Amino acid sequence: MIILIQCKDRVGLVAGISGVLTQLQLNITSMREYVAVTDDRFYMRVATATSTDVVQLENALKKVLPADAEITIHVKPDKKIVILVTKEYHCLSDILIRNHFKTLNATVQCVIGNHNTLKDICDRFKVPFHYIPHENKTKEAFEREVSAQLNLYTFNYIILAKFMRILSPGFVAGFHGKIINIHHSFLPAFIGANPYRQAFERGVKVIGATAHFVTDDLDEGPIIVQQTINVNHTHTTADMIKSGKEIETMVLATALKLTLEDRVFIYGNKTVVFE
Amino acid sequence: MIILIQCKDRVGLVAGISGVLTQLQLNITSMREYVAVTDDRFYMRVATATSTDVVQLENALKKVLPADAEITIHVKPDKKIVILVTKEYHCLSDILIRNHFKTLNATVQCVIGNHNTLKDICDRFKVPFHYIPHENKTKEAFEREVSAQLNLYTFNYIILAKFMRILSPGFVAGFHGKIINIHHSFLPAFIGANPYRQAFERGVKVIGATAHFVTDDLDEGPIIVQQTINVNHTHTTADMIKSGKEIETMVLATALKLTLEDRVFIYGNKTVVFE
Amino acid sequence: MIILIQCKDRVGLVAGISGVLTQLQLNITSMREYVAVTDDRFYMRVATATSTDVVQLENALKKVLPADAEITIHVKPDKKIVILVTKEYHCLSDILIRNHFKTLNATVQCVIGNHNTLKDICDRFKVPFHYIPHENKTKEAFEREVSAQLNLYTFNYIILAKFMRILSPGFVAGFHGKIINIHHSFLPAFIGANPYRQAFERGVKVIGATAHFVTDDLDEGPIIVQQTINVNHTHTTADMIKSGKEIETMVLATALKLTLEDRVFIYGNKTVVFE
Amino acid sequence: MIILIQCKDRVGLVAGISGVLTQLQLNITSMREYVAVTDDRFYMRVATATSTDVVQLENALKKVLPADAEITIHVKPDKKIVILVTKEYHCLSDILIRNHFKTLNATVQCVIGNHNTLKDICDRFKVPFHYIPHENKTKEAFEREVSAQLNLYTFNYIILAKFMRILSPGFVAGFHGKIINIHHSFLPAFIGANPYRQAFERGVKVIGATAHFVTDDLDEGPIIVQQTINVNHTHTTADMIKSGKEIETMVLATALKLTLEDRVFIYGNKTVVFE
Repeated sequence: MIILIQCKDRVGLVAGISGVLTQLQLNITSMREYVAVTDDRFYMRVATATSTDVVQLENALKKVLPADAEITIHVKPDKKIVILVTKEYHCLSDILIRNHFKTLNATVQCVIGNHNTLKDICDRFKVPFHYIPHENKTKEAFEREVSAQLNLYTFNYIILAKFMRILSPGFVAGFHGKIINIHHSFLPAFIGANPYRQAFERGVKVIGATAHFVTDDLDEGPIIVQQTINVNHTHTTADMIKSGKEIETMVLATALKLTLEDRVFIYGNKTVVFE
Repeated sequence: MIILIQCKDRVGLVAGISGVLTQLQLNITSMREYVAVTDDRFYMRVATATSTDVVQLENALKKVLPADAEITIHVKPDKKIVILVTKEYHCLSDILIRNHFKTLNATVQCVIGNHNTLKDICDRFKVPFHYIPHENKTKEAFEREVSAQLNLYTFNYIILAKFMRILSPGFVAGFHGKIINIHHSFLPAFIGANPYRQAFERGVKVIGATAHFVTDDLDEGPIIVQQTINVNHTHTTADMIKSGKEIETMVLATALKLTLEDRVFIYGNKTVVFE
Repeated sequence: MIILIQCKDRVGLVAGISGVLTQLQLNITSMREYVAVTDDRFYMRVATATSTDVVQLENALKKVLPADAEITIHVKPDKKIVILVTKEYHCLSDILIRNHFKTLNATVQCVIGNHNTLKDICDRFKVPFHYIPHENKTKEAFEREVSAQLNLYTFNYIILAKFMRILSPGFVAGFHGKIINIHHSFLPAFIGANPYRQAFERGVKVIGATAHFVTDDLDEGPIIVQQTINVNHTHTTADMIKSGKEIETMVLATALKLTLEDRVFIYGNKTVVFE
Repeated sequence: MIILIQCKDRVGLVAGISGVLTQLQLNITSMREYVAVTDDRFYMRVATATSTDVVQLENALKKVLPADAEITIHVKPDKKIVILVTKEYHCLSDILIRNHFKTLNATVQCVIGNHNTLKDICDRFKVPFHYIPHENKTKEAFEREVSAQLNLYTFNYIILAKFMRILSPGFVAGFHGKIINIHHSFLPAFIGANPYRQAFERGVKVIGATAHFVTDDLDEGPIIVQQTINVNHTHTTADMIKSGKEIETMVLATALKLTLEDRVFIYGNKTVVFE
């Protein structure tokens, strides 16, 4: 079992929680705890080798925690995800390969593309691909179609694997903390379009990528993972795009790993990640 | 306060320890815990905002811990260190600068050199330098002199900051887990002498440095920190030595920071490091 | 065109070569040159925007170069590769994806496996897979079958993408500088079997991977690319294997990119790589 | 000798230059060349083992180069630098140590501080320190005093080693390509004040530092070196400042090494760096 707890900090939380776990004979294999002193906020992730009744555990924990506590209990790692794409293959292919070989910690339910470029690669892995073009439609109408398609599946996370449309606040609001995006820059540098062109023109020596949860505010959601690589004067914009794809693939893969292993907490516009 | 606990694992340890801390009104600001399942061994580091009587705390903890428990309690971070050097200035200078500006988390008590090359830099910072040449002496006689000098100081750690003599098992035995060495390679690659020449001849593309506790077995002690940097065909052995000094300085600085902040446990020939 | 030149160094080489290129109206877009002073050896890579007759160019270059000069001229980047595998999917899948989307700078001719585990993934991408089991065969007999299969294809490089059989000196001799292997450790650390177990037992804080050309001497061939990642006490051998796969995939991909873009020279047991 | 050439590209430049060098019997030990195709601009750095008359060489080169060519010839690496500081010791100390042990590739002529905090460390190394407070002065008056002090020295570069005053365009104009600043963020992220506070509030997972030439536009000058390090949720603003100092020190040291070894070209708001 994986148990995630987030609440206002107070003296005795660890004693209370670990008391409950001991009482229920849960053998702790890993416990991570963190108090954000600036926010006065307590975070804990516990992994146990043995299992117990979830409702009983939740009730027992509630008794020793403040009223605002968010408790999430995962009995087994059987997440489901859906993926939104446009035309670029690198992130999607990486996920499909891991999905195919059962090393993703999740099952890909379907892929939705606003172009049908990536239908072929999904077909090869027998993953359903739904082509929903955005052309000649209002954003509202497009998103209504996407939602209708999503409603046919159950899933834990929506992954934007180089999905090049901006989702409306209305759409995003329905999936708080459930949409993960890969952004092709080291945020907050180069917010918005053409980050590699911006990077080239500025003459930077490092580029990067950012995986983050999506919120109303474009490129302002809680960051999960960021990584950078060195570039130099020989890199054209095209070279940076090419190198960027490598790091985007890695950063999204890492963010998925951390999220799907239940290692990521969201609070405000930040994350706490127990790597 | 910083409390370090290491013992055989059993159910209820966290509950027991955190119960004691709650009872003594100790406000936990950070708690890190790890169970090495292969060894069945439990490690915990607790930082508290408030303080209490050390003897009382230790006795209370003993009651909830197995008999083999090692408990270390640091009331405040006032470590003392001594440094052994030969001729190279880079690691020593870095430590002397941090010592001078009070950002080392420790006080340098003295520096002992088997050459007097580095006396001048110590003088500039008013740090005692003792010149103990090794020439025309047995290792035993040399180490006796070093020991005699060390005995005039109280200290927590001996830092080998590019000290190019191999210490005898007899000497090392007297300071178990107290001697930190910086080795000029990415162990276990290039054990022994001239690692950069070996690296050059092998045509490697990465070199590194290792900070480790010293044990009888040359270059086999528990590793605290390792880092690597890229090299390429343009690097001569001399270039690798130059780049190596940069990384040696950084790796030793990081290892000292971690050790002096009481974040490092030793068990067998390994470390557990709560970064 | 890409022109690679390697020869004994002497005064006037650059003047001679660039004179020839100017005379033949070749517009240089990139020129990299390096003299290994320890070996007294000259390396040059020239990329040109315009093209000319290869035989004429080679003859003209020979006139200005020492007798020992090795000249290689690539008119266009149309390499062909074959891949040998055993059971692990990560490196192969990464190559198949790049091959499928035409971003590999080469075409995969076929995959040969001593197990048939990876036939399925090859089938999905319509890449020929040949299953040649090694069981109940002498190494000689096994390699004869592999050679027979290879003979049906033309190719520039053989890629060992986690091929877990050691090739005989006889086999290797036939493909000098043409076989690229991914080794699951930071060579020369942890030579041989089970490097991650060795790494775990030694308690290292960094692990890595090495892509190298294969020579008679196991794990001693010229290194093309090495990279490392940090690990810590929480990593079991299994975790290191998992992290190792990520870095193996990246290191092999980088080595292939550099080799297939004709950026790698071999001399003795070392490489010169113009990144 | 180190020869730097920068000019509009045209066919035959390398042939022309290397012809001159051969004619003058200059033995090339390293030659790096780069053509920026977007700018149609040619850059070359040549290191020679032997030496010749500078004026004769320059005239001979001019004959084979376009009229706009910038030729810089360094006979020996005897640069001189002055340093401007405020209160922070880390970058200055690192430079003073390298200066003291003659590994800086330059001589520190003097240090100027707008506070006298760092006088003591300069005194210890017998490096002149000039205290020029900025308080109760116009920027103009302050800079006039700084200029007057600088005029007493000859120097190649002004290093802003955590100098926390913004220099006026008038001051900067007098030293085009001669002022190097270390900025405490990964530009263009977090331009301006308190980058670490901004980074903390945004919840980033990577922070960095940038060494750049100073131009009129604050934080917009040509970037020489950038590096990043990972941070996580446990890092307070104070922790990021502490980690930031480590990377600032390294980045400035690397930028100085590259600049003082004549490896850096400036063109527009970018650099070409032959590492």
